[in-house]
Amino acid sequence: MPKIVDHDERKKTIAEAMWRVILDKGMEGATVRNIADEAKLSLGALRYYFKTQDDLLVYAMELVQKRASKRIEAVLQQSLSPRELVIAVILEIVPVNTTTRIEMEVWFAFIAYVKHRSDTLVVPDDQILQMTEKLMYFLQENQLLKPNCELEREIERLYGLIDGLAIHAILDPDRLDPDRVRKTIEYHIDSICR
Amino acid sequence: MPKIVDHDERKKTIAEAMWRVILDKGMEGATVRNIADEAKLSLGALRYYFKTQDDLLVYAMELVQKRASKRIEAVLQQSLSPRELVIAVILEIVPVNTTTRIEMEVWFAFIAYVKHRSDTLVVPDDQILQMTEKLMYFLQENQLLKPNCELEREIERLYGLIDGLAIHAILDPDRLDPDRVRKTIEYHIDSICR
Repeated sequence: MPKIVDHDERKKTIAEAMWRVILDKGMEGATVRNIADEAKLSLGALRYYFKTQDDLLVYAMELVQKRASKRIEAVLQQSLSPRELVIAVILEIVPVNTTTRIEMEVWFAFIAYVKHRSDTLVVPDDQILQMTEKLMYFLQENQLLKPNCELEREIERLYGLIDGLAIHAILDPDRLDPDRVRKTIEYHIDSICR
Repeated sequence: MPKIVDHDERKKTIAEAMWRVILDKGMEGATVRNIADEAKLSLGALRYYFKTQDDLLVYAMELVQKRASKRIEAVLQQSLSPRELVIAVILEIVPVNTTTRIEMEVWFAFIAYVKHRSDTLVVPDDQILQMTEKLMYFLQENQLLKPNCELEREIERLYGLIDGLAIHAILDPDRLDPDRVRKTIEYHIDSICR
């Protein structure tokens, strides 16, 4: 009797295998052959789930984005003070643990790779700008922002800070460790809140 | 009579050809063949100046760093107020014109590529953290920082902001245009200064 395989689960398994290959070998090592080996599948089986390498690439990028969104949704369900909520949401994106580290590192590798081919590829958005906007509107609606804060500039500044800290945490994790990431974000949020 | 070639100039020409290939095709297109074609040299001539591709890679990275340092040195010679000086130095790094854009884009491509091979390659440091430290010490020594600023956190925050804005300006130049980059940096510096 043939094994019953959950189609969606198998696609996730392959995408996660692609993540591991990227973390280990970089995008230049993320060949279909290496990904199939890592997923313990034949090339034919991999091609059954993803017709082209681009299909897999886009799926693997979307999976990063979906996982982060799901964790952020869970944070929003917790009963936290506005300050704690904002910080908790940011810490689901900036690398402070293995999950966020892997996701962010894979995302940056994707972005560097697809930069030169966005003419042929619809690159998923990471939604971090939209999330930053929501966080700032939330602080403003709760009248927590200091009166001299300019909303548009604060959005740009926090958005830059999130991705800047993320890239530094990935490139130099010994210096910018999770505790230091957390303290910097807390410091920033406290500096703009009453 | 053979042409007299300035050895250093020729190396710079090759490194700049590598930059252009990276901007156009990404690191995966930066083959020795493509770089030689772009520099209008034979493979043999290129190999005369750079024995290995890694030699060229490191030289091309160092050239980005040296050019930025030279421009920053020139800014420091200008008679500017401390606030203007700090902003002018930052704007020599964050992309606001073609020069800084090319340098930063090439640098990110380098970094994404060498991340997985730093075991065999001595990667030059971009010196942005060190520069950020100097700028903050300078503001502190001139007693310009607001009294509630914590120096260590301010360094981390500005360092993150610089690279975050840089990566966003490269990935989405229509949204984060030079004027918006400049205003965000001015806003940040004004927020921490008396």
